[in-house]
Amino acid sequence: MILGIFRKKSSAQVAKNRLMMTLAYERASTKIENLKELRQELIEVVKKYVKVKDIAIKSNTNQDIETLEVEIILGEGG
Amino acid sequence: MILGIFRKKSSAQVAKNRLMMTLAYERASTKIENLKELRQELIEVVKKYVKVKDIAIKSNTNQDIETLEVEIILGEGG
Repeated sequence: MILGIFRKKSSAQVAKNRLMMTLAYERASTKIENLKELRQELIEVVKKYVKVKDIAIKSNTNQDIETLEVEIILGEGG
Repeated sequence: MILGIFRKKSSAQVAKNRLMMTLAYERASTKIENLKELRQELIEVVKKYVKVKDIAIKSNTNQDIETLEVEIILGEGG
């Protein structure tokens, strides 16, 4: 089950004032045509709810799983 | 770093035709006031890009980390 693909590490590894948004899917069976636009729209929605200072985006391919990580650094002055 | 809090499991555990969207943040330092509305808006955005058949939502608190998992089952007939 894809529900189990995430595991949380200890809180010591987690920085404060960050919101992590991740998308994950199997590459072979799932094609997302406009992934960049989807990502941008998701970020715009998050911006309506929290104050965003900076954003870091990371794409990852791990065997069959494609992962898109959006790290949102919260705070004033974005 | 919050970037490291996710770990991917082997593809054998991942079901096909699913898109997993996860939000994670430290509870103590990050308050999201309208989390339900944020979640709903994020889902609406995803629906614009992929065909959604069903959605399962799971909230999780693991020590200091709050996690919101949205499992999106793709396909016709949503």
